[in-house]
Parts: sequence; C-alpha cells; structure tokens
Amino acid sequence: MIHVNTAFDRPDPDLVKQLSGYSAATIHEAQGRLGALDSTIKPVDPEMSLCGPAFTVVCAPRDNIMLQVAIAHASPGDVIVVSAGEYAEAGSFGDVLANACVAKGLGGLVTDTGVRDTRELRELGFPVFSYSVSMKGTVKETIGPMAEPVLIGGEIVRPGDVVRADADGVVVVRREDLAHVIGRSQARVEAEDAYIADYRAGKSVIEVSRLAEVLEAKGLVIDE
Amino acid sequence: MIHVNTAFDRPDPDLVKQLSGYSAATIHEAQGRLGALDSTIKPVDPEMSLCGPAFTVVCAPRDNIMLQVAIAHASPGDVIVVSAGEYAEAGSFGDVLANACVAKGLGGLVTDTGVRDTRELRELGFPVFSYSVSMKGTVKETIGPMAEPVLIGGEIVRPGDVVRADADGVVVVRREDLAHVIGRSQARVEAEDAYIADYRAGKSVIEVSRLAEVLEAKGLVIDE
Amino acid sequence: MIHVNTAFDRPDPDLVKQLSGYSAATIHEAQGRLGALDSTIKPVDPEMSLCGPAFTVVCAPRDNIMLQVAIAHASPGDVIVVSAGEYAEAGSFGDVLANACVAKGLGGLVTDTGVRDTRELRELGFPVFSYSVSMKGTVKETIGPMAEPVLIGGEIVRPGDVVRADADGVVVVRREDLAHVIGRSQARVEAEDAYIADYRAGKSVIEVSRLAEVLEAKGLVIDE
Amino acid sequence: MIHVNTAFDRPDPDLVKQLSGYSAATIHEAQGRLGALDSTIKPVDPEMSLCGPAFTVVCAPRDNIMLQVAIAHASPGDVIVVSAGEYAEAGSFGDVLANACVAKGLGGLVTDTGVRDTRELRELGFPVFSYSVSMKGTVKETIGPMAEPVLIGGEIVRPGDVVRADADGVVVVRREDLAHVIGRSQARVEAEDAYIADYRAGKSVIEVSRLAEVLEAKGLVIDE
Amino acid sequence: MIHVNTAFDRPDPDLVKQLSGYSAATIHEAQGRLGALDSTIKPVDPEMSLCGPAFTVVCAPRDNIMLQVAIAHASPGDVIVVSAGEYAEAGSFGDVLANACVAKGLGGLVTDTGVRDTRELRELGFPVFSYSVSMKGTVKETIGPMAEPVLIGGEIVRPGDVVRADADGVVVVRREDLAHVIGRSQARVEAEDAYIADYRAGKSVIEVSRLAEVLEAKGLVIDE
Amino acid sequence: MIHVNTAFDRPDPDLVKQLSGYSAATIHEAQGRLGALDSTIKPVDPEMSLCGPAFTVVCAPRDNIMLQVAIAHASPGDVIVVSAGEYAEAGSFGDVLANACVAKGLGGLVTDTGVRDTRELRELGFPVFSYSVSMKGTVKETIGPMAEPVLIGGEIVRPGDVVRADADGVVVVRREDLAHVIGRSQARVEAEDAYIADYRAGKSVIEVSRLAEVLEAKGLVIDE
Repeated sequence: MIHVNTAFDRPDPDLVKQLSGYSAATIHEAQGRLGALDSTIKPVDPEMSLCGPAFTVVCAPRDNIMLQVAIAHASPGDVIVVSAGEYAEAGSFGDVLANACVAKGLGGLVTDTGVRDTRELRELGFPVFSYSVSMKGTVKETIGPMAEPVLIGGEIVRPGDVVRADADGVVVVRREDLAHVIGRSQARVEAEDAYIADYRAGKSVIEVSRLAEVLEAKGLVIDE
Repeated sequence: MIHVNTAFDRPDPDLVKQLSGYSAATIHEAQGRLGALDSTIKPVDPEMSLCGPAFTVVCAPRDNIMLQVAIAHASPGDVIVVSAGEYAEAGSFGDVLANACVAKGLGGLVTDTGVRDTRELRELGFPVFSYSVSMKGTVKETIGPMAEPVLIGGEIVRPGDVVRADADGVVVVRREDLAHVIGRSQARVEAEDAYIADYRAGKSVIEVSRLAEVLEAKGLVIDE
Repeated sequence: MIHVNTAFDRPDPDLVKQLSGYSAATIHEAQGRLGALDSTIKPVDPEMSLCGPAFTVVCAPRDNIMLQVAIAHASPGDVIVVSAGEYAEAGSFGDVLANACVAKGLGGLVTDTGVRDTRELRELGFPVFSYSVSMKGTVKETIGPMAEPVLIGGEIVRPGDVVRADADGVVVVRREDLAHVIGRSQARVEAEDAYIADYRAGKSVIEVSRLAEVLEAKGLVIDE
Repeated sequence: MIHVNTAFDRPDPDLVKQLSGYSAATIHEAQGRLGALDSTIKPVDPEMSLCGPAFTVVCAPRDNIMLQVAIAHASPGDVIVVSAGEYAEAGSFGDVLANACVAKGLGGLVTDTGVRDTRELRELGFPVFSYSVSMKGTVKETIGPMAEPVLIGGEIVRPGDVVRADADGVVVVRREDLAHVIGRSQARVEAEDAYIADYRAGKSVIEVSRLAEVLEAKGLVIDE
Repeated sequence: MIHVNTAFDRPDPDLVKQLSGYSAATIHEAQGRLGALDSTIKPVDPEMSLCGPAFTVVCAPRDNIMLQVAIAHASPGDVIVVSAGEYAEAGSFGDVLANACVAKGLGGLVTDTGVRDTRELRELGFPVFSYSVSMKGTVKETIGPMAEPVLIGGEIVRPGDVVRADADGVVVVRREDLAHVIGRSQARVEAEDAYIADYRAGKSVIEVSRLAEVLEAKGLVIDE
Repeated sequence: MIHVNTAFDRPDPDLVKQLSGYSAATIHEAQGRLGALDSTIKPVDPEMSLCGPAFTVVCAPRDNIMLQVAIAHASPGDVIVVSAGEYAEAGSFGDVLANACVAKGLGGLVTDTGVRDTRELRELGFPVFSYSVSMKGTVKETIGPMAEPVLIGGEIVRPGDVVRADADGVVVVRREDLAHVIGRSQARVEAEDAYIADYRAGKSVIEVSRLAEVLEAKGLVIDE
C-alpha cells in the first residue's frame, strides 16, 4: 500500500504572478545560478512559457497512471512536474490529457520523458516542457510517490516550489525564497538594462564588465 | 552481382488516403502500440507530414548512390524509406534530389541519416523526416538491397507497407492490416472526442479513465 | 602570463560578400567536401545565417571571460568563434552581450557550448549558432588563447578564415582559398540549376547523374 | 521538514540466499522478462556480484549526504540502492564509505551516478554497480526521500525488494514474488541444461527451439 | 513470404587462416583504411578474437528468431554477423545459443545489439563482439533477410566477406580482396618492425616518419 | 606559418615523484575538487597509471601529425596531452608510436580521441588514457598549436602542469600549486585512514562525518 498525502503549502499567488514577469535565465542568475534543470528538458514550441507551483509526481518509465492521478488531484494554476527516468521513447501525455488540464485550469506540464500530439498542444496553448517527442503509448500499471520531492533534470523539485519555464528551459525556485528572488531578479533586470545602454553608448565590454584589473591580475597581455 | 526486384504489391490508394486522415500517434495506438519508429527520426519542419507506400532501400553510411537509384525506380505517391545506419554526419539528400522527387510525384522521404538544404526543402513543400541535419556530402560507391525489408528506427519496414508521419514522428502500418487499422483509428478518434467532451464538462480524469478500482486494487490511498 | 596578439590578416570584404551569396552546403561541396563543422552546432533559429571572418577564442567550459575579451577586441563584421569543449550545460552568451556585439557591428557568434535568452536573440536579429540552449550561468576565471587556430565541431578554424552558416550548419573556408571557392560555388549552383531543369523536364535521376555505367560496373541488376 | 520512516519488511533471508544461486539473466527471464535495470548500470569489475534486500535512497546529483545517512541506517545484508539522476560526472562513493559498509556487513551498492577508488573497491571485495566511474567530489547539502520506492535504470525499486546483480547487470525481484521466482528460475536452469545437452548431442537450434512450424507460419522459405 | 537463399561463396580457408595472423588494425591500414566497424562494437572480453567468413542476418530489435535460424544454417568456421539496429537494451545471445555454436564449430558472433551470460561466454571461449551487455530477453516474432549484405557499425558486410576482430574492434575484408590484403598486411608488419627498430636505435619520430619536409611545406616553425 | 615555442618551465621532479604517491581522486579532493577531466577519458587497462609534466598539443580530428611532432620534441618523463575534439572514431596512437615513446622515456599519453593496438600497449607497459578504442587510421595533414594551453575533458591543461591518472581517471595540478597540493593530499590520506579506523571500530557514518547537527538543521527526521 502506498499512502499519499496531497496537501502541501502553495506559494502566495501574488508572488507567483510577480515572478512570471522575469525570464527563467534571469531568475536562475538572481538566485545565485541555482535551480536550472538540465538543458535536455525543452519546450514543445519555443513560444511556450509557464510559471506556477509544482505538483510533483513520479511515474515509472512508459507508464502514465500516476500522471493521470496527479491531474485529478492538482489545483488550478499548478504545474504538473513528472519525474519518469529520462526515458525518451514514450509519449506519456497528449491532447486528451491536455484537454483535461485546460478544463481544470492547470498551469502547464514539465516532464523528463516524452509527450505527443505536439501540434494539438500548440493549438490548445497548453505549455509543455519535455525530454523528447515520442508517440509511443504508455501503460497504466505502476503506482508511485506523488506530492513528494522529486528528481528531474538534475534538480530536486519539492511540491509547492515554483517552476518557471520559457524558451531557455526550466528553473525551480524554493517556495521560501520567492520574495527574495523576485527582488534580486528586478535588480538584475535593471543592471542588465544599464549594461545594454552602456553598450549602445559605445562602451567596451571590458569597461562595462570592469574586467581590466581582473585580466591584469590573471596575467593576460594583449597586443593589437 | 546484386540482383534487385523492384516489383511489390502496393496498398489500395483509397485506403492510403483514408489512413492519411489520422495522426501518426492515433494510428500507433490503434494498431496496439506498434510500428512507431524511434523518436530520433524527426521532421525537418514541424508542419511536414506524409502518408504513402514505402519504397525501401539500404544505403551505406555517407553513400547515397542507392537512394538515387530508388528515386529513379519509385512510383508516384511512394515514400522513399532509407536505412543508412543512423549516421548523423552526412547530408544524403537535398534540394536537387528533392526536385527530382517532386517532378516524379513521390510522397516524401524517411531516413535514419542526415539531409541538407532544409530551407529549400521547406520552400519546395517536400516532406522529409531524418535523423539529423548535416551538410556533409556523400559518395556514390556502394550498391545494396532495394525493395526489401529494412531496419530503421528500431522497426522493420517492408516494401508496400504504409508509412505515416507528422510532427510526432513516423509510424509504419503493415499493408495487410490497413483496413483494420483505419477502422480502429476511427474508433479511437471517436473515443478521444468523447473523453475531451467529458473533461470539458468537468469530469475528473479518474472518472473518465475509470481508474478508481484499478488504483484501489494496486493499494494507492490518497489523503487530501 | 599569456601573451595574445590579436592582429591577423582579414579577407577581402568584397570576397566575403560574394561568398555570402552561396549556401553553406554549396560551399562545403565546392571546396571538395571539406570544412563543415559537426551537425551538433545548430542555429538558435532556422532563419539565422551569417558570413564573416573568424575571430577565434578558447573558453574554459562554464567560463566566458575570454568571450567577453574577444567581443571587446573583434572588428566590425567579425564572427566570434568560441571553442569551449562541447559543454552543453552552460549559457555563455545572452542578450546583454548580444547587444554589445550589435553595438560594435559584429557579424555573429559560433560556439560549441550553450547560449541563452534565445527569444531576445531572435528579436535582436543577431545570428548565433550553438551546441545547446542552456540558461546556466558561467564564471569569469580562466584566461586562454585568442586569435589562434581553434578546434570546434571537428574542424580547425584559424583567425581570418571565413565562417559561413545557415539552417544546414556551419562551414569554414580558408582565407587563401576564398576566390577559388567562390568560383567553384558559382559553377556548382549553375550545375545544380541544370540538374533541376532536367528533372522538371522529366529526366530520370540515373540519366541526370549518369549512373547507368557506374551501376553496371558495380554489378547491380534491377528487375521491375 | 522531511519525515523518513526506515522500517520496512525485509524478505526471508533463506529465500534471498536461494535466489543468489541464480544469475541475474536467469531471474529476469524467470519472472517474465521483467525487472532488469538499464544496461548503463554496470559492475565496477566483471567479477563482482551481489544479492540482498534493497535499502533505497534518493540523492541529488553531485550530493551524497543521503547516501551517508542510508549507510548509517541500513542493516547487515542490505544493498544500498541510490537514485541520483543518471549523473555521470560525480564520484559519490569510494573506499572510505566502502569501509563503513564492510564494517556494517552491508551487501553492496547499486547507483545511477558515479563512484571512485575503483581499485580499492576491488581489493576490498565490496560489490558496486554504477553508471560511471568518476573521481569528482560531491557536496553534502540536500536531504531527500529514503526507504521509499525509487526510480533507477528505468525500474522502480521498493525497499525490501531483492536486488541481484552480476556481470550482466542488475535485476530487481518484488519481495512478494521471491518464492515463485526461485521456483521458476530453477525450472529455467533445468530447461537450459537440457537444451545444452541437446546441442552437444548434435541437434539443430531449429529442432531444439521447435521453430520449424513457427517459421513456416510466418512464411520463411530457405534454400540451401 | 520471404525467400532466403543461404548459398554463397566462402573464401579459401587457407587465406582465412593467413589473415588471422594479422591484427584487425593492421588489416584495416593494409586495405587503405577501410572496413573498420564503429568503435561501439567491442569484445565481451579483451582477450577474445576471431577470424572467419561472415554469415549475415538481420534481426528486428529485441527479436532473435533469425539469429537462431542463422546458427542452424551456418557452416563450421562461419562468423555470425547480426544487424539489429544498434539497440542496446536487449540480450539477444547467451550461453545456451553459444553452446549450440560451439557444438557446430562456428567461429564467433558479431552484433550491433546486446548479449548476456558474459561470464559463461568467457568460460566457453566463444568469441563475441557486441554493442552492449544486457540481460533483457528477446522475442521470436519477426522474420527478415539472411545471407544478404547487411549494414553494421557503419559498414556493409556481405556473406562470404571475412570478418577479423580483436581487442581493437572489428574489420571486414571483401572476399575478392583477401590475397591482396594479406600481402599488404605482411608488408605493413615488416615496415612497422623496421620503424620500431629505428626508434629503439634512438631515431626521432620526425626522421622515421620522414616529416621534416612535410612540416616545412606546411609552414611549421619550432623553437626549442 | 605557425610559430611554435616548445620551451616551458617543468615542475621540480622531486615534487612530481611525491605527487605520484597519491591517487587521482585524493589529489582532486585535496585541491578543492578541481582539475578532474571528464569521466569519458579512461585508461586502456585498469592497471595503468601515470604522473608527469604535460607536454600539450592540439590535433585535428583524424589527424596525428602534430602528435608525432610532439613525441619528437617532448622530454623524458613528459606526458603527452592531446586535444583532438572528442572524436571517437579514430585510432591516433598505437604500438609503433608507443615504442617511440618508450625509447625516449616519456611518461604516458592522455587524449580525447581514440587509440589502438591496445593489447600491445598493455604488453609494452606504456600508460595510455583515451576517449575511445578505435582502429581507424588517421591522416598527417594539419598543423596546429603545441606547448600551449589546451582544452581536454572540460579542463584547461597548460604545458608544465602535472597530470596524474589512474583507474579513476585523470586530474591536472597547476605547476605552481604542486607543493601545496602534496601537503593537502597527505593530510587527506591521514584523515581518511582515521575515518576507516573509526568505521572498523564500529562507529556510525553519521558520527564519523559529524552529520547529526547538519541533518537536524536541514529538517530531516528519521523514525526506525
């Protein structure tokens, strides 16, 4: 018998909304270069993006029964995060389940196995980030953990952590760090805008990044 | 000396046309989760799709002489299926040969090696599914089997089997199973439409997929 | 101490412009099937293309300090070519540095590690060819060679060689071969146009490619 | 807070001992071709083998704190089974921890990340099956599940399931299936011995495997 | 219906025996750097080697029925060459079939899928070169070509070609080239022995390989 | 013209000898978990080990001319370190060149491409660490940098840095850090010996690694 408790603390929706204003790459940098999932987990379409609390679940490879259970128990806005062993040759999610997700108002899906019906997913506008695109069907046999910390893309995602994803990939933010990361993301955006203004004004990268002393200390001598 | 016989039975064109009305994923499920090639064989552009009888050929890696022979001997509507050893670093097919295929009315190309001139292929509208995109040129040295069963993407494709491909990948249907698979594909589409209608009406995945007893039998207990 | 000399001979701009009129695949064939980088280095967007003299630099994996130095020292039109060890899980270049490149009028970037901010790169219209898309941040610690021959995608690129890239990938042309390669590219385009005209006029691949005697010599016998 | 309960039912030691008399491949076949982990998990030395109840734990990639906790809480004879995300570039276990395992009488280690000190592991005689050999050190930062079902090598291993491994790889047997699988393994060994005796007596594979009718039904015609 | 003709010309046994006196690497060089299968096909044990005429067969991935048929029809000394699509996760051959091969006096097995019972294969002394070691069982469903040219490891092997394999991998020699390749292999061995004698006498690599003029022509200037 | 200066400072031979008394994994830890090359570079035989100053060289893939030049210019005890683009399908070094190295008293070879004649290398006792074993021959065409910093296995190795390699892989120590790393390696060996003595005396991993407070601070609660 596996006893699953699906209750967990979700983050303040207002903070989630604020976080969604920053790109995944900005957030990753803002929290000290942490939380980025491996680059092997990519959007089905480069226009897709998502931001929401993680509803985590573990599936056996080639088996999506727990993913279906997760959809049934997730709350509006949740992002289903499926750890399934980096198995490329399975299509564990497609347009039928995507319609179920849209009907419930879920926020998206992130998985380390494959998905299918990608054209229909694009048309539905339901954001999906996956390890592969595969049409190969799955079985419905193996039960496993849900709403527990899971390992995906080399990172541990806990239920209630916030997942942000866009064309550059997926990043996870610890629920307790949310306000802090938003503050640092905003600071980073402002700093980057200043850098870009400097570049447009004709300043050199070495000047803008203040590299001159660093390079000298490291012993680089450049002749032109 | 290699003696090749290019005569084989092609499927009823009317059945091929009917099959083309279903997605590759639907067909794969409809025939009992069989026939899908590995997910490593992908469309050059996500809008491409094809459906037609397989004209099979084996090329040595980095060698496209038999692919040229196959184009010369294939019939209008045929899909050239090239088994070339999953070699990524070769561009065995490009816009010149694609023009030859279009001039003959061929239905498309599926290969487990690379292709090139992808922008021109998109503009021509000739559907190509390949293992890689590579510009590296090929030689014209090695003769091999044609119009024989070939191994590609982990599946055996026989001449005259029907190949259907879209954004989700490539599936093969045995020629003798065509009518049966069309019937089951139509049944599956209707069942999926009913599932989607149920979801839109607010039913739970567990209810729609009838998972409650299954989960109980497997010992899953969920607290909310 | 590393002593770097950034002076090198650049090619005649007029020849670079002429070369940009041919596709990467055509140039690769025209110079005897040489110079194509591995197919693992791909455009961030299939519409991107570039053509310009290589400004080469070696970065340690996960470290972009030398890339920043290279941007500072490159000249308008130069293509930054970064050898960084085929490391997928790093985003060594993004929209801030791309703005620096655009401000300086650089011609593009080719790298065997990852980049990020891909949506912004597309919007900026700055062409980038990379080994991966990754948001993971880099450090600024390790100095290394610049404006020296580098190994990337299985080819050696020297400073001042010309890099041409499009949807099919990246090819390098030795500076001293430029005029010769342009001449042969033009001859090849004309030959290919003639082949295509022949196909549209209904000629067979075997006739157009003059394969009949070759196949007979190799012992291929075909029954229809 | 993560609350971990390390109590679980272990299998009858007598049955574990009986199972250890059969090879991993035999057991895999005997239970219906189930339970084999992916071939990417290999012994550090081809002479190594193990058989014992699984003590499961999840580690973050490049982090072995939970592996250390698991060693502290495992019982004599247990095999530590570490799910760590198929991360090759980390050496999460070496001779120091192996000495801790030997001192406690543990039965071995199976992991989907790397290990190091392989010469010392061979000399100690402690059986280790891993995804890679890497010397790269790990941190001790991230807590995670222990004594829960884990995903490794494409299979779910539950605490108390029995893990058997040898030169051919790793197989898991559900605790409740142990007696049944032992019986079928013994039957399989006897059947294979009979096949081998038949071969030595000069019988053909087609005769011994009773393939003649099967091949005829499938339409294979062979001329010699 | 698949009609298979297993008759093909085998090479002169005396020439096969002579060829077996040269290493795979020597033979590969002697025939102009041709015929080497990809390095992914390796011996089960580094002490294994084989040399004999190829008896070729195509298996579907995870299916060994045609391999069994091939064993039944091969002749003493033949090396079974199995093309099965570079599928790692299947153990298509093990100690039971190896006993059948030994009883018939076959010369070995080369395959691009997995094998199992590797300890028993070592003890039997039957040489096996494979793409992987996997215990996962196979089905007996799919018939396919036998005694036809097959694609394996990026090379085409024809029935009756000679396969030579040792710790460095597998090389194929065309049957008609056998005498010529033996002559050139002997010449190469003698040349290499002379080089080694020169090195032991203290000569420099540049002198022995006569590189001085080559390097000068290429513009290499070396300061010490 | 490429102008190469082969003069560089070599480390104190006495320090190199001292360093050779520690395993690669110990040295990697002792210098702060830095300097380990990727686990894809492995010994040809698990018994091989080496320790010596790096003589660095860059080869084009499939081309060993610069490796030959490097052997000619290296000094007794030097370890040739070849950066060649992680190209698996080439055998750039074999028994003939190994005899040249042995005759000169070189210390070993580390490369990110393939080698061959592995049986002979074992018999000669010349230690070789490579990315692959391949018999495929190389050309002698492309000159490139020598005695410059090179990128290999994700690390930069400078001429005169010390390379230490054993069954666990390859680690590089900066020349200027040698004495410091030796001191810390010795301290680490002594600490590990103390840990092992504690384990043999029956202490728990949690006690020996002083994990109790760490785990409590991180919120791990364990029930037995």
